[in-house]
Amino acid sequence: MNIKLNRGSTIPLARQIEEGIADRILSGHFDPGAQLPTVRELSRVLQVSPVTVTHALKLLEERRLVNRVKGKGVFVAADVVGTSWQQRKSEENNSPPIPDYVHRSQHFHFNRTAAAINLSLSTVHPHLLPTQALADSVTRMIAADPEVLAQFGEIQGDTELRNYLAQYMERERLQVSPEQILITNGSQQGIDLVARCFLGPGDIVVTEEPTYSAAIDVFKSRGATVWSVPVDQEGMRVERLLPLLDSGGSPKLIYTVPTFHNPTGTVMSERRRRELIELANQLNCLVLEDDPWSEVYFHEPPPPPLQALDRRGSVIYVKGLGKMLAPSCRVGYLIASGRVRERLLAAKANADLGNPLLNQKVVLALFQSQVFSRYLNRLRKDLAQKRDLAVRLLEEYAPTGVTWNVPRGGLNLWLSLPAGANALLLLERAEKESLHFLPGSACYPGDVEWNHLRISFSCVTDEELEQGIRLLGRLMQEYLTLPSGQKGTTPYF
Amino acid sequence: MNIKLNRGSTIPLARQIEEGIADRILSGHFDPGAQLPTVRELSRVLQVSPVTVTHALKLLEERRLVNRVKGKGVFVAADVVGTSWQQRKSEENNSPPIPDYVHRSQHFHFNRTAAAINLSLSTVHPHLLPTQALADSVTRMIAADPEVLAQFGEIQGDTELRNYLAQYMERERLQVSPEQILITNGSQQGIDLVARCFLGPGDIVVTEEPTYSAAIDVFKSRGATVWSVPVDQEGMRVERLLPLLDSGGSPKLIYTVPTFHNPTGTVMSERRRRELIELANQLNCLVLEDDPWSEVYFHEPPPPPLQALDRRGSVIYVKGLGKMLAPSCRVGYLIASGRVRERLLAAKANADLGNPLLNQKVVLALFQSQVFSRYLNRLRKDLAQKRDLAVRLLEEYAPTGVTWNVPRGGLNLWLSLPAGANALLLLERAEKESLHFLPGSACYPGDVEWNHLRISFSCVTDEELEQGIRLLGRLMQEYLTLPSGQKGTTPYF
Repeated sequence: MNIKLNRGSTIPLARQIEEGIADRILSGHFDPGAQLPTVRELSRVLQVSPVTVTHALKLLEERRLVNRVKGKGVFVAADVVGTSWQQRKSEENNSPPIPDYVHRSQHFHFNRTAAAINLSLSTVHPHLLPTQALADSVTRMIAADPEVLAQFGEIQGDTELRNYLAQYMERERLQVSPEQILITNGSQQGIDLVARCFLGPGDIVVTEEPTYSAAIDVFKSRGATVWSVPVDQEGMRVERLLPLLDSGGSPKLIYTVPTFHNPTGTVMSERRRRELIELANQLNCLVLEDDPWSEVYFHEPPPPPLQALDRRGSVIYVKGLGKMLAPSCRVGYLIASGRVRERLLAAKANADLGNPLLNQKVVLALFQSQVFSRYLNRLRKDLAQKRDLAVRLLEEYAPTGVTWNVPRGGLNLWLSLPAGANALLLLERAEKESLHFLPGSACYPGDVEWNHLRISFSCVTDEELEQGIRLLGRLMQEYLTLPSGQKGTTPYF
Repeated sequence: MNIKLNRGSTIPLARQIEEGIADRILSGHFDPGAQLPTVRELSRVLQVSPVTVTHALKLLEERRLVNRVKGKGVFVAADVVGTSWQQRKSEENNSPPIPDYVHRSQHFHFNRTAAAINLSLSTVHPHLLPTQALADSVTRMIAADPEVLAQFGEIQGDTELRNYLAQYMERERLQVSPEQILITNGSQQGIDLVARCFLGPGDIVVTEEPTYSAAIDVFKSRGATVWSVPVDQEGMRVERLLPLLDSGGSPKLIYTVPTFHNPTGTVMSERRRRELIELANQLNCLVLEDDPWSEVYFHEPPPPPLQALDRRGSVIYVKGLGKMLAPSCRVGYLIASGRVRERLLAAKANADLGNPLLNQKVVLALFQSQVFSRYLNRLRKDLAQKRDLAVRLLEEYAPTGVTWNVPRGGLNLWLSLPAGANALLLLERAEKESLHFLPGSACYPGDVEWNHLRISFSCVTDEELEQGIRLLGRLMQEYLTLPSGQKGTTPYF
């Protein structure tokens, strides 16, 4: 266990250790019932006093994540929710534990499910995709130029595709040159490359609260300190950063999903966008703009991307095309300039020496076929209908006290149970009936709110959506009417 | 500039700082003539005394990597070889430098070339690949199952492909289950995933000396300390690890290319393989076995993979299929078991949420088409011929004093100039005549030997090979007969 401690931080060391171990438990890195290292061992490895370790373990015990057994040691609670529903293979328990640096992988953990109705997949259902057009593009492209198959691509990505993407971004109100574009394996790799370039132990990264769970996983695994600020109807509450700055330290990176925010669906107003850029410039810090689906607006287009408002080259823009266009190609890209781009390119080389060329050529062929803009228009309508259906179903089946947003774009709904409820316990019940969703707790980097959940309406058929929300409604009803003693026996209150 | 200092190491801090800055200069991360941060600034950032920084800068000055200008500061030498041949774009110099964690990227740096004859590409020439069979596989696969295009793959990789690879590895004398296999974006990502899981600042990794340059880049960028041991005709000299252990510290990972070693082409004997496994078990450390091309033996098959000799699950096996089969698909894989596999899988999720599915299905289709084994037999013969041609040409054109290995498999020749020569200076001359090769210096993690170079005979036509080696011969001749004053005016002696 390698927990990165930030000795200059205002967060006490015991809290940092508690969080490091909690992250691992909630990512399923420890089996339920597994023994933790001894106080002495932790004290040695982490180079802190035994008193600090004991305090951290006490905090974990209070959260019911671990149990202390007198004379034997400290054990991960056997009933840790979020871990126990995940059946582990016995093989995995035999090999000796080797200290590792994957501090958190909750996104991965909560996406491993065999549930029949999966409301956690934030991608577009195959039935809505232009599959036949994709197939035709592939076949045509291969027939015209089979030699593509025998070539490695450039590390930065195929020049032809980058030329096209530069034009495409112009329609999205962003002026970029093909040299500024770096092709990545999905947007996830874009986030990861930025983190591996610019974040390390002790560096501070700011995120929205809640935010995209897999981004938290990446930042924490780099050993960075994550500050988070809440979102409201105008997006990230930029002004809430100021008191954090007074506490000492200055962020190196601000990560944001400004448009159809993941998971809450809100859109950052243009005013806030300008405030954010200005603050970033004052702080001399980078901004990572994650734009998964700004094209998928339901009625009116969102404000221009942050990068369009940036004159200093401090915004890095990240985008994935897989979820809305060609999942099997997983082509994403990032846009950066100057030295930042140069570093990201070197990091991409170290990471994997470049994306496969085949997929890039397939996506390019699809773009060139003119199918894309027709498809996008249809997708907007299809997803708006799906959102409407989901909202109607929630109105019908959700019990009193449950609230949700009505997003104007994107693929997700963010549900809130009454305070005091725990969506992880709800998930445990749902899994038993083969229904899955993303527990909102995975979207908090620090102090977790347990009473939220995210459902995606985009990757299920209308029948599954109806079945899923009806079932979810019944499960919420049952859970919320439990006697408060039972409802409260969670490890987290 | 984030230089990871290992304060528990026996290597003096000044030497560590020197190496950190030298790595960046030789990776082209600083422009020639660029000013380094001041002694005071470096002292503050690295938390060492100004005396230590001054000593480190003096060591860099002795290597002629930097120049001190009285009253002005310290500057990267304007004539640093290995950097200056690389023309930089002016745009890149305008943005402010932001401290980053990409400590070294020499592999990337030395692969950026527009030379007409490129002897540094260690891949198979398109003319030797089964391109038409690949094209047919793609077309057939898409026609039979266009829905593949609309699906995200599993994070671990396509089940069907993993089933096939398990069978394939059995023929390579390795018993594995599909669950142990994780599909990666080339072997490079396999190496990177292992490093990001198990190496961090202060951890020790052992490599061969010389070794694969991009692996050094990855290990150093994780902030790990790299120990290296020489190779001889039996491969890694395992016994040379023992005195290093006496100096304190214990490796967490041993990285090796046992079969047709990159760059020297040697094959580790079975005896050494067993010794290495035994030592790793004693040290309780992991072994990363990089096997780029053991199938491409010219006459007799090499000994079984290290992983076949391992009973404790401490060997991680990494393989890429791109370079010898389908470059545009870049499908690689790693094999690991137990908790190690589980961690690598979580790291893969954090890194990019999984390989694209399309390429995996294309490679699977090619495997299933039965073309593969016929192709492999032909490739062995083709490459053996190319090696013979390269050796004949060297015998004809290389000046006296230049030596090389004769590899029994793989794609590379390792050339040695007389001691005191510097292949970087030779590269500078070669680039001017549009010839490129890999300078051997990129293959050393620590104390560099400057007089070697690697040429690959696999990714050029016979005509290019002849032209390239004839030109190389002349350039070596010219360089070696320079007056020793001129030959020696390198920044490195």
